[in-house]
This record gives sequence, structure tokens and C-alpha cells, in this order.
Amino acid sequence: MPSDALPATSPAHPPGAFDRGLLAPVAVGHDDLVSDDAVLAALVRAELGLVRAWEALGAVPTEAAEAIAAAWSADAAPEHAAPLTIEVASLAAAAVGGGNPVIALVSLLKQALAPADRAWVHRGATSQDILDTALMLVSRQAVDAVLADLAETEAALAAFAREHRDVVAAGRTLAQQAVPTTVGRRAGGWLGGIRRARIRLQQLALPAQLGGAAGTRASFHELGGPAAAELPARYAEELGLDDAGAVWHTSRWPVTELADALAQTTDALGKLAGDVVTLSRTEIAELSAGPGGGSSAMPQKSNPVAAVLIRSAALRAPQLAATLHLCAALAEDERPAGAWHAEWPTLRELVRITLGASAHAARLASVLRVDREAVARNLALTNGLILAERLSLRLTPLIGAERVAALVAEAASGADVAALLAALPEADGLDIPSLLEPANYTGDAAAVVDRVTGVEPS
Amino acid sequence: MPSDALPATSPAHPPGAFDRGLLAPVAVGHDDLVSDDAVLAALVRAELGLVRAWEALGAVPTEAAEAIAAAWSADAAPEHAAPLTIEVASLAAAAVGGGNPVIALVSLLKQALAPADRAWVHRGATSQDILDTALMLVSRQAVDAVLADLAETEAALAAFAREHRDVVAAGRTLAQQAVPTTVGRRAGGWLGGIRRARIRLQQLALPAQLGGAAGTRASFHELGGPAAAELPARYAEELGLDDAGAVWHTSRWPVTELADALAQTTDALGKLAGDVVTLSRTEIAELSAGPGGGSSAMPQKSNPVAAVLIRSAALRAPQLAATLHLCAALAEDERPAGAWHAEWPTLRELVRITLGASAHAARLASVLRVDREAVARNLALTNGLILAERLSLRLTPLIGAERVAALVAEAASGADVAALLAALPEADGLDIPSLLEPANYTGDAAAVVDRVTGVEPS
Amino acid sequence: MPSDALPATSPAHPPGAFDRGLLAPVAVGHDDLVSDDAVLAALVRAELGLVRAWEALGAVPTEAAEAIAAAWSADAAPEHAAPLTIEVASLAAAAVGGGNPVIALVSLLKQALAPADRAWVHRGATSQDILDTALMLVSRQAVDAVLADLAETEAALAAFAREHRDVVAAGRTLAQQAVPTTVGRRAGGWLGGIRRARIRLQQLALPAQLGGAAGTRASFHELGGPAAAELPARYAEELGLDDAGAVWHTSRWPVTELADALAQTTDALGKLAGDVVTLSRTEIAELSAGPGGGSSAMPQKSNPVAAVLIRSAALRAPQLAATLHLCAALAEDERPAGAWHAEWPTLRELVRITLGASAHAARLASVLRVDREAVARNLALTNGLILAERLSLRLTPLIGAERVAALVAEAASGADVAALLAALPEADGLDIPSLLEPANYTGDAAAVVDRVTGVEPS
Amino acid sequence: MPSDALPATSPAHPPGAFDRGLLAPVAVGHDDLVSDDAVLAALVRAELGLVRAWEALGAVPTEAAEAIAAAWSADAAPEHAAPLTIEVASLAAAAVGGGNPVIALVSLLKQALAPADRAWVHRGATSQDILDTALMLVSRQAVDAVLADLAETEAALAAFAREHRDVVAAGRTLAQQAVPTTVGRRAGGWLGGIRRARIRLQQLALPAQLGGAAGTRASFHELGGPAAAELPARYAEELGLDDAGAVWHTSRWPVTELADALAQTTDALGKLAGDVVTLSRTEIAELSAGPGGGSSAMPQKSNPVAAVLIRSAALRAPQLAATLHLCAALAEDERPAGAWHAEWPTLRELVRITLGASAHAARLASVLRVDREAVARNLALTNGLILAERLSLRLTPLIGAERVAALVAEAASGADVAALLAALPEADGLDIPSLLEPANYTGDAAAVVDRVTGVEPS
Repeated sequence: MPSDALPATSPAHPPGAFDRGLLAPVAVGHDDLVSDDAVLAALVRAELGLVRAWEALGAVPTEAAEAIAAAWSADAAPEHAAPLTIEVASLAAAAVGGGNPVIALVSLLKQALAPADRAWVHRGATSQDILDTALMLVSRQAVDAVLADLAETEAALAAFAREHRDVVAAGRTLAQQAVPTTVGRRAGGWLGGIRRARIRLQQLALPAQLGGAAGTRASFHELGGPAAAELPARYAEELGLDDAGAVWHTSRWPVTELADALAQTTDALGKLAGDVVTLSRTEIAELSAGPGGGSSAMPQKSNPVAAVLIRSAALRAPQLAATLHLCAALAEDERPAGAWHAEWPTLRELVRITLGASAHAARLASVLRVDREAVARNLALTNGLILAERLSLRLTPLIGAERVAALVAEAASGADVAALLAALPEADGLDIPSLLEPANYTGDAAAVVDRVTGVEPS
Repeated sequence: MPSDALPATSPAHPPGAFDRGLLAPVAVGHDDLVSDDAVLAALVRAELGLVRAWEALGAVPTEAAEAIAAAWSADAAPEHAAPLTIEVASLAAAAVGGGNPVIALVSLLKQALAPADRAWVHRGATSQDILDTALMLVSRQAVDAVLADLAETEAALAAFAREHRDVVAAGRTLAQQAVPTTVGRRAGGWLGGIRRARIRLQQLALPAQLGGAAGTRASFHELGGPAAAELPARYAEELGLDDAGAVWHTSRWPVTELADALAQTTDALGKLAGDVVTLSRTEIAELSAGPGGGSSAMPQKSNPVAAVLIRSAALRAPQLAATLHLCAALAEDERPAGAWHAEWPTLRELVRITLGASAHAARLASVLRVDREAVARNLALTNGLILAERLSLRLTPLIGAERVAALVAEAASGADVAALLAALPEADGLDIPSLLEPANYTGDAAAVVDRVTGVEPS
Repeated sequence: MPSDALPATSPAHPPGAFDRGLLAPVAVGHDDLVSDDAVLAALVRAELGLVRAWEALGAVPTEAAEAIAAAWSADAAPEHAAPLTIEVASLAAAAVGGGNPVIALVSLLKQALAPADRAWVHRGATSQDILDTALMLVSRQAVDAVLADLAETEAALAAFAREHRDVVAAGRTLAQQAVPTTVGRRAGGWLGGIRRARIRLQQLALPAQLGGAAGTRASFHELGGPAAAELPARYAEELGLDDAGAVWHTSRWPVTELADALAQTTDALGKLAGDVVTLSRTEIAELSAGPGGGSSAMPQKSNPVAAVLIRSAALRAPQLAATLHLCAALAEDERPAGAWHAEWPTLRELVRITLGASAHAARLASVLRVDREAVARNLALTNGLILAERLSLRLTPLIGAERVAALVAEAASGADVAALLAALPEADGLDIPSLLEPANYTGDAAAVVDRVTGVEPS
Repeated sequence: MPSDALPATSPAHPPGAFDRGLLAPVAVGHDDLVSDDAVLAALVRAELGLVRAWEALGAVPTEAAEAIAAAWSADAAPEHAAPLTIEVASLAAAAVGGGNPVIALVSLLKQALAPADRAWVHRGATSQDILDTALMLVSRQAVDAVLADLAETEAALAAFAREHRDVVAAGRTLAQQAVPTTVGRRAGGWLGGIRRARIRLQQLALPAQLGGAAGTRASFHELGGPAAAELPARYAEELGLDDAGAVWHTSRWPVTELADALAQTTDALGKLAGDVVTLSRTEIAELSAGPGGGSSAMPQKSNPVAAVLIRSAALRAPQLAATLHLCAALAEDERPAGAWHAEWPTLRELVRITLGASAHAARLASVLRVDREAVARNLALTNGLILAERLSLRLTPLIGAERVAALVAEAASGADVAALLAALPEADGLDIPSLLEPANYTGDAAAVVDRVTGVEPS
């Protein structure tokens, strides 16, 4: 039946809408900050910031700057110009011819102004100045949102770690039970990784860009004379961005350092999510993440959807960051032929999925529940052999490594460890129940929890 | 001035529109086939296809199938049900809870039907069946469009290669002039790479998916009995997709083989675009790609925008394909917890940029122009040393390798090669003008052009 | 104690030995085919093949060709020349100056010959001809070895699938138990993915390269006249490689198609290994892979080492393949400045880890053991709710979706499903024990096993 | 002739030598720090450091520690034990069974000791402690070497920038000449990017690892009591590594932060190398990098080999870093099953190629030469249109944008710009020669050079 008519979808959307999140549920609901609308708003803000920076140097009349700000504001409808209503899809289409949307945007922005004010727009700038700056504006807001989500996640995980500080659980390496740990200690590890990523994000420089056509700022100097040397700092200040102290047209560390910090964030969240997925497996069942996602086929299932979506982000972020590094390495000449263009959608997608992952993580951390009975059941699964390392450390000096190995093998075949120990003449003085108590073999687990949750100074 | 109001953007767009192409000009204008609307339409088609496949087995009444098809068609407004108008953004939002959009979609699709018909919907299927199938439907259409663009590109490049079959030009290796080639031969290389990619795309299997909850098709057998064995083939047939002969829930070769072929396509187009960018450099100027993109700052520039945008796609595609391979490698259990979800936006973006790259390539190939004067000027730049290899081959038997090296060094310092040769007693019988004619040292360049352009059988 | 003297390591190794596998245990024992020695041997074979191809055209005297072959063979020590003993480390060092090892190698190869025979060496060739051809020779042997390993793996998995054809097990999606499947069906999925990858590998074209300095073959035509047109085919034939029908200096599909097939192989093996790791978890314990790796700390552990190492390869392969695609996309001019050089170690590493992964997989598949008791125990964990989908399909027509959901919820809270069903008046005619028998809800699992293991034609 | 005997290669190499750099010339000569020998030495140092750390706590007798250090040092041959000679290839082979080389190494290390001293070896440690620590030791030394190379590169580039501070050159965007810049300014950009990367490398924390089997350090506490809390800090101190303050078994930021900084380094060096390759093109010829690499076929060529090899590293590094991020994201449980193992060869290769790239860059920067004549020739190529932006800024207020565009178009068609300007009545007061002097339109180029080269404070 390939000839069946295609179904109706809403006629409300504009032509050219690529993506409203249907295929990236991780990012839905957290994307306002990086949507095309947000980018457009940032582009206009970048242009307005330039007007204001020139104004601050006395090179644009304040009345003109005010009129421009008013004309470009949402409810502006000055009599002498059409109200500014920019259709993103049309602008996107116009961007194809020039390779970027700025040329067409400047034209639209000028049309919204009185003729006399138009000369103050885009003064000395090149497209890259505006686009790079806009992407940093968008990133600034998104990173702030990620930071807020991470702070919330950390708080929830800290509470979780404290609550389960002393719940002894099986530690696992290479997917096999290894030695005991605690639920709190595991959460402390999640917390540490997320905190490190947050610090990286906090330390980021997100600079404005103002280099002119080839990074020499000649146009600004041509128009502004010596005072133009102040323009970049004023520009950054106007926009609440950092002043990199240098043009970064083809020195793309602001993009790659951002990408690295975002990937570090999804790494840390991915580790959390991966453990949640594993520990909520039907057969392990130590963790649950609240009422999960349903299934179209299996009514009993409660899928760990938030963790699954976070993982989907964590699997994608590294390769997106790699593309950004490649673009940095290939930033030839004074502006590269393709490597710059490949950055925009890649950076935006990386920001978007990090935003989604952090938002999901905040919720996930707040609903994590421990089934202590399951934890205890799993801990007991090996009939005491989860303490084999401890036994080995204690018994080897007494009976030698070979006999320890034999004893462990016997226990692995089903023998009772306590009985085997009791039968050892050399182990006469051992407090066997204490030795076989997993809670007595958790090292500094509690201390780590105290430290990372601030009970002791970190 | 961080407090300036954000500018108005069009109020027409729905909330939740991530992306209308503002940051990916390579894809604008070629994206209808992979937009969220297209995906939604494909999801509905996948659901309708299942109804039709069951109908073909006699398990769904034809009247019901017809009613469903009618209700889901664009202008359907049956009295007993609300007309089907699905808002993508809402559906995307609903997808977050379940992790994918199918659960919410099925509910909406049922609401559009008379109660009695609802039981025929999504019969035995799991979300993955529908989503995988829909992505293959979207890919099928997009790959067909790419194939058409590639055919057009090949035709234009073949005409170009024939036109410039015998235009001798400098061949370059490691960015240095090396030996002569021809403009036609270089185009023949582009053509060969693109053709190989096209063949890979043509050979792809893009299968429907119908495995049920865990790939056993138990639900279909439960509902359809032994006849259900026929269902997958019928389903594929209904939808114009291939029948993989097996469930591929966690055996993701249909996705990775598609990804590989798409990356091979952007590789081949990226090679073309890279050469166009290089050869249209101001200092080389052998090629131009018609009136190019303007600049917001430099009115004289004519940027090779199409080539630049193709390159931007070629730099991104490999890492997107890598993510898809990773997802395939990590397809644990009977459906993975994140690796499946990471595929959707990644595959879609890879398809989208390939579509954009191939459309740009078709146009680029049709407007490529050669400046034969520049070609000749560049060929003459080394004062004959572009033929040093030939001289070496001819002279070494006569005067030995050392004296050849000395002669080449002398020529590299500015001496006239013809004069140096004329002064060589051992070179007495050589036809020096013929020896120094680059056109006489182009090997099988013309034959290759004839072969790849079909003058001789390939 | 940073001043402690470094430990002694064996003095036997030559200076410059990067890597003997200490950090890549996956590849140890399977690397002879791709070691530097193997590459060196292939480089010499590529040079010798060229001599032989010219000889076949009558352009090199047979006596000279024989003398060359003899001089370059392992035990050659002709009186007129030094025996051929090439020190890889020295050759590698010499490669730095020229950017590749061929220039230095040709010089060494000539030194091993009588002066009169030296002119027949490297006749018309460029470094890339020899290096590309050598990498294809190495790949050819390695791919053959991978194919043998895959055949062995498939045979073992087929036997495993047949043996456990009817062992009903829990199927899992998003890490949660979903519906039943069988151990055999799961193995059938592994088998299908591996078989597909094998077919891709079998279909590969691994061509010789013979293009001359810039792909025009001008040097060969200069030296050989019209007969040179036959040279590429003869060359390929001499070496047991494919004839691509075209130069691929900057059309790198032979490399990327190989990379894609290798990544598809590690994907398929990674899926197998991932499932083995999961299913051998202490808490799941359905599978074991024979006596596993020990631990330096935990004497009781038996780690699934082969699966772990295969996974390590599967996590790396996609990004290596991505680099190769990038190099293909960036193959500018008639030979690129860096993209070609980045291919060599990347391709070799990808070949190496695939070789390692396939060898481990063959062993892993041969030692896989099922703990049927654990399989049954896990299947029973949900107290029958693993059949919730089936109940829903059967009961919804009888009691409606809402009451089904309520019943499932009651069962999930601990109620006995059979009792709940028995209490349903509408379910009067149901054969409850049969309905709740997981073996009755495995769809076409057995048929799939029969088909993929050849009991029925695939 | 496929049956020709394989050539002899040196019999001196040990079996199992994967790689001596034949296929990675970028890294040859700079690899001693990361070779398997270096890794082995670091593994032993990590074990010895643990002995020393325990000794510092009073838990190992000083005599024993001294005896161990002596036994493991290069020329040790204590009577009571075999001298320590570890064959890397054998150790690598032994690593396959356990999945890592530490278990076998510990056994060998103990054999070299008197029986009474053996108990002090590997005390409380798990394999991961030793391997992670060893990789950080190797990285520490390699990063120091990279830092030295970068410092040298920066010094050479600073001298280069100062020397060519005022050499006006064509700036290029999207491969087209755009506006003037200076040779010094371009070098200032390279310098800025490299300096930023160096700072990232300097700020890295490269911590020792000491977590025990599952990160709880239970074994150390078991053996050392409360004093064991001091062990990690002592351990780091002994080895000259950082103390991370926390176990990082599955919180892999030390690896990814290192990877990010390394990729940032190859990005910055790749940008330099890419510009060198472009600017030394035969047709551009503004730069040369000293006597370059030869060609096996073309005697006249002087290839920019160092730049080419650096680029080969820059194309590979991002994907290697991506793999490390993936491994971090997939660090499940208390030690992951594959993700940890995938890190080792990937990190080592990334370190290795960065080391090679930085060494090549130091040399490249020291031999860079400018052909000022070529620079001037290229600058003049557009007949003054490289100043079109300046003309537009100056003339638009006088004659309007339309007439400016017409004038530029006329000039682009060959008209003399000065004459066109002279003919403009509105341009009466302009100092046309000054306006058309490229040196007058270089903005803050000189100031940037002064700042980045320290003439003014940065």
C-alpha cells in the first residue's frame, strides 16, 4: 500500500522546520536556549551589542543607539520602519547563498530602521564576528542552565550519598562481584565526577569575537581611529561575555574548551546513568528511578527512561567534540573554507544534548531509590567470597598463598566459608564473624562520603 | 547593555522548534525529506503499513483498513472521530516520558478512529518496529534523492571532463607541483569516487523492522497464528522496503551500512569540494564555481560557497557514522538502553547533510568553469621542472642519476632547461621541444577520461 | 623516591620499538600479519611485484627479475651484493625525512643488487604506489585471517544455538526483563550479525595501486610505451590483489570500504561480547566463558577476559574508521598533505584490533557455557509478568485495557497471576497453565535458529 | 609471482614487535618516552613507589625496600635472586590471559626478590592502581617533553613574528584573498593558539591512582590500619605525581582532561602546519620550511614534510580523544569491562603523536623562511581590490553603497582603482595613494605582534 496518502500533520509549523525534537527526546523541554529562535535572538543581540559598544566610545549617537534598540525589540513598531519580524526559515534559506545567515540578517535589521540609523549597524564587523559572538551568547546561557542543573544534581546525590552512607553493597569489576563497597561511596564517585565537570564549566572563558574581516580589526580602526582599540573590551562587556584578549577567528580554543567541558559533563552524567541502568536491571534491582517509561507492548515494564536518554547523549557527545577539534585543527588561512561552518550545528547539538542530559540528571538524582533488601541479597550471593581478598590478606601470612587459593576454591564450590575457617588451626585467634562481616571491609568508603558531601572539608 | 530586550522573532513558529536550518545552511532546501514532519509522516505510514500487512493476511477487515487509511490521510475528517492533526512539538514532548514518540503517537492515532477500528492499530508491534521502519522509510526517500543528485552531478562532471579532456594542468602532491595531469583527468577522478559511492548507495538494503517486543515476533504469532510468518514480508512489501529476512533490533547493520555509504558519499563529494576550494584560490584561480557567496565586509569577494558547505558536511559525516557504529557495537540485550536512542538524531543528521551535500554538488558541478589561461600560467611556473621526473627517466640512462640531479638543481636555480639539455652531448638525439612539452607527459589521462565518461566502456 | 633507578628491561629489543603489545592485549598473538616486519615484507613484495609485472610485459629481462627476487629473498647472499638485511627501526628513522619509508627502502633494495640490475627497481613508481599496495597486501592477509576466525566463530555459535535452541530465557529491553526469548534465538542474532560482517569482508575489493607520481601513469607510459596500459592489471595479478580499474591515489574508497567492513565486524563481535559480559554478571550468571582471567587482588574472580578485550576493540574501531573517512574526504590535489599519512597507522591499528577481536571471538564462542538453572531462575523472577504482553493481547478483547492494566499492577504487587486469571469470569475458557507457560510465547525463535544454523535454508 | 619468497628482515627484533614506527614517521625519534619499554619501566616504578610509600608509613622495613629497589634496578644481580630482566614481548603475551600485564609482572617482580621480601610487593594494590599510575608516569614525562618542545616552538615563532612584524601580506578567508594582514600577525595567531594549549598542559593534574580492588581502599586499611589514610598522598609524592584527592577508577577525568589538552595541542600545531602547507604551495610560495622531503619520483620537489606529518597527527588526535571520552562515559560499575582496556593504547597513541607533532613543530618553527617578494606579488594580485573593504568604508558615506559596488565591479573587470577614484568628484579630498596602501590597512596587527611576543605585556 505504498500509495496510501501521507497523513496530515499540523499545518501550523512553518516550512523548513527541520527538527522539533521528535528524534531527540533527551533534549525536549530544555532546548529553548539553543533553538533557532534563541540563535536568532543572539545574533540580533550581537549586532545590538556592537552598536552599544560603539556608542560607549562616543562613535554612535545615543539617540541612534536607543532607536535601534527600540526598533529591534520585540514590541517595537516605529512609524518610520516596518516592525522587526524575522522569519527564521526565510533567514535560513537566505543563509545558503552567503554561506551564513548574517549577511541577510543585517539587511533585514537595517530595513527595520530609519535610513539615517542604518549606517550604525554592523559597523566594521564581519559575519564571523557576529556569528561567533552569538554562539557564545547562546552557549553562555546554556552553560548557566547546565550549571544550575548540575548543582541540583549534586545536591540530590549528596543527600542520597549521606542517606545511604553505610549501606554495604557488592562492588563489581569487569561485571563480576569483587569486594564490598557502599551505596553511599558509589554515589560519592558520581558526585566527584560531576563536580569536576562543573568546575570545568565554571572556569570556561566564553569570549566575544571582534576581529573584522581577517582578524586585524582594520575596519574598526578605520572607522574609530585609536579609540577602536577599546572596542573589543566594550563589546564583551556589553554582552556579558569574556574578553579573550585576542581575536580567535582561526584559533578556536574557545569552541574546543567549551566542547571538552561539555563532553566531560556528559561523561560524568553518563557514568551515573550507566550505573543506574545496570543497578536497576531486573536481576540486580538495587536501584530504581521512580516510575519509569512505559512500553507500547509490555504493560508491566518500568523503564529507566531518564538514565537511558542521558546515556544516549553520552554516547554522542565525544564524537561531536571530536568534530569541533578537527575544525580547530583545520582552521586554515584567516577563515577556513568549511571547518568554520561545520562548527555551528555541531556545537549547538553538543550544547543541546548536554543541556538535556543535565536536566534529566537533576530529575533522576532526585528520584533515585534504593532497595536495601535487594542490595543485601546481592551482597550475599557469593556466600562470603566477596570477602576473598580480605581472607587472602589475612590468611596468606598464616597458611600461605596456595592453601588460601584452595580454601577459596572450596568455598566457590559451595563449602561454608565460616566452617572452613573454623576448621583451620592456624586461624585460631581470628574473630571469624567479624572477619566475614562485609561492613568491616569497606575501607574509607564512609570517609569519602563525608568528605564529598561536605561533612568533612573536601 | 545586557539588559536590552531580546528582539522579536516570528511568532508563527510553534514552541519547541529546535532547528530550522539557521546553523546548517548546507541542508536548507533539501530537508523536507528528513524533517520532523517527514518523520511523523513515516511513523504513521509505518503504522498504516502494519494494518495493511495484516489485512493482506486476512486478519484485518478491508473496510477497517480503508477507514483507518482514510482517517489518517491528510484531509480525513470522519464524523465519528476527530480529524487527525498531530502537533509534532506536542508529540515530541510526549516522547520524553516514554523515551520514544511511538507510544504517544499510537494513542493519538487511535483517537482518530472509530472505537471498533482501534484494535487493529499497532497490532503486535513494539515501538522499535515502528520507529526503525519509519527511519528506513525516511532514509529510502532521502537516499533516492541523493541518488538523483549524484546522477546529475556525474552527468555534469562527465561533460566537464570531456570538455577539458586535453587541457594540461599542473598535478600537485603534498601541495607542491609535481608532474602534469589534465583538467579532464582530475574530473575523472572526482567522477570515479562519486560513482563508487552511488553504487554503494544503490546496493543498500533498507529493510522494514518487525520483531515484536524482543525480536521473537511472539506477539504476531499470538495474534496471527502460523500465518504470521508471512507478516514481515508483507509488511516490507507494503512499505516499499526490503525484507531483511531477520529481525535487526540489536543487529544494526542496516543502520551502519547506510551510514557507511552516506559517509562514502560525503567523502567523494568532499574531495571534489576540496579541490574546487583549492583550485579557485586567488593565487591559483584555475577553477571558478560561478557567482559565489558575498561577504558582509568585503564587496569584491566571490566565495566558493557551495564547495565550502559541502566540505562542512564532509568534515562532520565520519564522526556521525562512528557514533552509529558505536551504537551497533553497544546494542546489548534485546534492545539497548541508550544506544538505540542515540541512533535516531545521528542517522537523521547524517542523512540530512548528505542530502544537502549532494544537492549542492549537483549545482556546483553544473557551474564549474575553467580559466585555461590560469591553468597554463600555473603549469609554466616551474620553468619546465614540472617535467623533472620525465627528464630523470630519459636522462638517467644517458648521464647517470647524479648529473641529472645537478641539472635539475641548476634549473631550479633559474637556468633554462632547454638550454641545459641542448648543451648535453649525450642528449644529442633528443627532440628537446617534444620532451619538454607537458602535453606529451600525461600518460593515460585522456584514456581515463574516455573510459569514465563512457566514450570507452568503463 | 623519584630518584630510584629505572628497572632493567630486556636489552634484546632494538631501539625505536614503539609497541610490542603491552597495552593492547586484545591484539597480542594475532599481530604477526600486521607488524612492522609484515609491512616491510609487503613493501618489498610490492617492489618485487613491479619488477615481475614489467618482466611479464617483456620490459625487464627474466634473468634480472630472478636475480632481484633471489637477492631480496631471506637467505640470499649473492656475491656481487650485500645480503639484504633491513633493520626496521633504521628504515623507520629514515622515513621521517621523506615522510614515508619507501624512498629509503628503494635505496637499500638497490644496494642489495648488482649495479646492472638496479635500474629495474621501482621502475616508474611513486612512493604511494608501493605503500598503498603494501598496505593492501597486509590487509589481504589479515582479512583472510579474520575471515577464518569468523568462520570458526560462526560454526561454534551455530552449534551453541542448536544445542540451546529451545532453552527459554528472559528477553530484556532497556535492561529490564520484557518477554521470553530463547538462548538459541539470542545466539542466532549474534550469528546473523557476524555472518553479515563476514559477507562484507568477503566482498571487499583490495586493489593494488599503480598510478605514478600524480595518477596519470605517465612514467609507466614513458618507460613502457603502449604496453604500459597492461601494467596495472599484471601488477595486481602478480600480487594476488584486485585491479581497481583506476588509480585511487586520492579516491580512497578501497581504504574506507575496508574500514567500514572491519568496523562492522567489531560491531558484530562487540554485540556478542557485550551480551556475554552482561549475561555472565554475578547476579545473572546465565553464561560463562570458561575459566576466565584472574585478578591481582581478588582470588575468587573469573573475569570474562576475552569478551572484555573484544569490547575494548569494539569501542575503538568506529573512531579509527572515522579518521579514515576524514582522510578520504580530505584527499586534496593529486596526493594530500597529511591525510594520506594519517591513514597508515590508523588502518593498521584497525586491522590489528579486528584481527585480535576475531581471534578472541573464535575462542570465546567455543567455550561459552549456559547455566540452564540460572536461566530458569531469572525467567521466573517476575512471577509470570514476563508474559504480561501475552496476557494483554489475550485479555484485552475480553476485559478491556483498563482491567488488564489493573490486573498486571496487582500481579506486580505480588499477587499470583494464575489465581487472578482463575478468578476472572471472562477468562473462563482459557487454558491458564498453557497461557502462562513461557515456552509457548517464543514466536519464531526456534524457526530462526533452524534457519540461521542451516537446518532450514537461510 | 605471489610465491616469491618474502624478503629477509632483520632477525634482531624480538617476536611480537608490533610497531617500530614504520607507519608513523611523525612519532619516530620522539617515542622513547612512551614505548613499551617506557611503560614497563613505569609499571615497575609504580610498584616500587608503593613499596616506598608503605616504607614511609613505617609498614615496610627500610632494608626490605632498599633490597627491592636494588633488585629491580637495571644492574642489580643479588645473589639470592635472578637478575631482573623482563622481556616485554613475553609480558605482553602473558597479559592476554589476565586482560592486563600487571598480574604477570608482579609475579616476575617477586621472583627477582628474596622470598622474605616478596610480601611487600603490590601490597593492597589492584592491577588498575599500578596500570593507571604507570600511564600517568609515562604521560608526565611525555607532557614535560611536549612542554619543552612548545616552549621552543613559541620562542622561534615569536622571533619569526618580530622579524616579519610589518611585512604586509594578503589575508585570506574561504580561500579567497580578503583584506591585508601581516606575516607577523599571522604568526602571532599561531603563537597564541600554541600558548593557550601549553597553559592547558601545564595546568593538568596527573594523579597517581591508589584505590584497591573497588575504590574503597579496604585492602590498604586492612593492612595498614588508620595510617593507611596517608598512603595515597605518600604514594603520589614518591612518584612525583599529583594527589587527586580521590580514587578515579571510574571517574576518568584525569585521562580525558589530558586527552583534551593533547588534542588542543595538536589543534594548535595543526593550524600552524596547515598554513605552512598552504603558504608554501608552488603558486603561493610565501613560506618555505627549509630543505624539505624528497620524492621517489620527482627530483625537483621539496615537500613540507614536517608540516605534513604534523597535519597527519592533527587529523588523528580528535578521534583518539573521543574514544577516551567514550571510555569515561562507559566506566560502569567499580571497573568497566572493556572501556578501561580501550583507554591504554588510545591514550598512548595520542601522547605519542602529540610528542611527535610538537617535536616537528619546534624544528619547523626554527626553519620557517619568508619569501617577501612572493608575499608582495600575491598582495598585488587583485589590483588593489584587497582594499575593497576599506574603499567601501570610506566611499559609502560619500557616494552610497550602490556606486561603491559598481566601482568595485569595474575594478574587478580590470579598471585601475586609483584612476577610478581620481575620477570621483566626491573623493576629491582623499589621499588616494595613502588610501590604496595596504600597509595602512592592517589594523592592530603590529600591536598584536608586540603583545604576544612580549614587547608589550600580554
